[in-house]
Amino acid sequence: MMKLYSRNGRRKADRSMKLLEERIRRDGQILEGNILKVGSFLNHQMDVELFREMGKELVRLYAGCGVNKILTIEASGIGIACIAALEFGCNAVFAKKYKTSNITDDVYTARVMSYTHGTEYNIIVDKHYLGKGDRVLLIDDFLANGEALAGLVHLVQQAGGTVVGAGIAIEKAFQPGGDKIRGMGIRVESLARIKSMSLETGIEYC
Amino acid sequence: MMKLYSRNGRRKADRSMKLLEERIRRDGQILEGNILKVGSFLNHQMDVELFREMGKELVRLYAGCGVNKILTIEASGIGIACIAALEFGCNAVFAKKYKTSNITDDVYTARVMSYTHGTEYNIIVDKHYLGKGDRVLLIDDFLANGEALAGLVHLVQQAGGTVVGAGIAIEKAFQPGGDKIRGMGIRVESLARIKSMSLETGIEYC
Repeated sequence: MMKLYSRNGRRKADRSMKLLEERIRRDGQILEGNILKVGSFLNHQMDVELFREMGKELVRLYAGCGVNKILTIEASGIGIACIAALEFGCNAVFAKKYKTSNITDDVYTARVMSYTHGTEYNIIVDKHYLGKGDRVLLIDDFLANGEALAGLVHLVQQAGGTVVGAGIAIEKAFQPGGDKIRGMGIRVESLARIKSMSLETGIEYC
Repeated sequence: MMKLYSRNGRRKADRSMKLLEERIRRDGQILEGNILKVGSFLNHQMDVELFREMGKELVRLYAGCGVNKILTIEASGIGIACIAALEFGCNAVFAKKYKTSNITDDVYTARVMSYTHGTEYNIIVDKHYLGKGDRVLLIDDFLANGEALAGLVHLVQQAGGTVVGAGIAIEKAFQPGGDKIRGMGIRVESLARIKSMSLETGIEYC
């Protein structure tokens, strides 16, 4: 295997992360209110070859962790999760969003606050598809406030499964989500970590 | 290449379709009101290796058709679409559902009636991600009344693109959607076509 450490011992940013970072710089659009639009390749139109590279990178990061299930949330996490699942050789499950609180006994459920939309919703997973033996990797396109990701952690905990960690495409490291989830003792690997961004200065990575 | 015709000239059901048909028989659940639950492998938990076989089969069916984009609709079409896109070597795009009619000029839009939920909604695609040169394969998990699929056709037509055809996981051939879409001159390939189903007699394929 290739050595992934530079001479000073710091892990080198690997090819895949560079690939994503450069793609965000090239094709992402910064809008007012700390919004980063990446619809041309990540969460509306989807560059599945890029997703494959991201999946391979997550396999490398979580090698030996025994991941046997991937859990994401609809809708924009699903493509990344499915292609990562191909690389891991396991099934993917997506949590469904429900506005109503009309929820049956057959599901695990968590309440999620959306800061973006100023609303709350429930996420659910059928109890048949998440269980005690599961070693779960959580996947999502963005990590900002961490509410959705915390909801996914809660679903796995209800099922008695193990959260191996999270694999995030883009972490807005200037928002509190990453600290919050890592503070819960969960390993979080973000393929691109944005330290700051603005229309004037562009994107700076961690 | 293997011959896919039997002695009487009829195209043999291929391996991939058989795989899906058998999986539906084994793991699908028939509920009252012609509902078929396939959440254990298709649209809640997702067996991505099965999706890969489905993608390969769609590549075989649409060989030489110049497909350069896959279009689906959130949420349950996304996984199938992304893995098919890997096999086709093209991008995938998902149409987003909007309850509101508060829609900007930047998007193509179509109105869709949901018989299942008794509601109407809009589907939208950003105009940047669908265009004149596109030869589009539409993908979805189910074809029943054909409303969502007709909406996707309408989006591609607005963009001036070409609908090469549709690739459906499960067609409920006893409902009018298949005839409706084929009647519009659109090629529809369904990997499993259900002729009839009931709790008493199980599933019969076309």
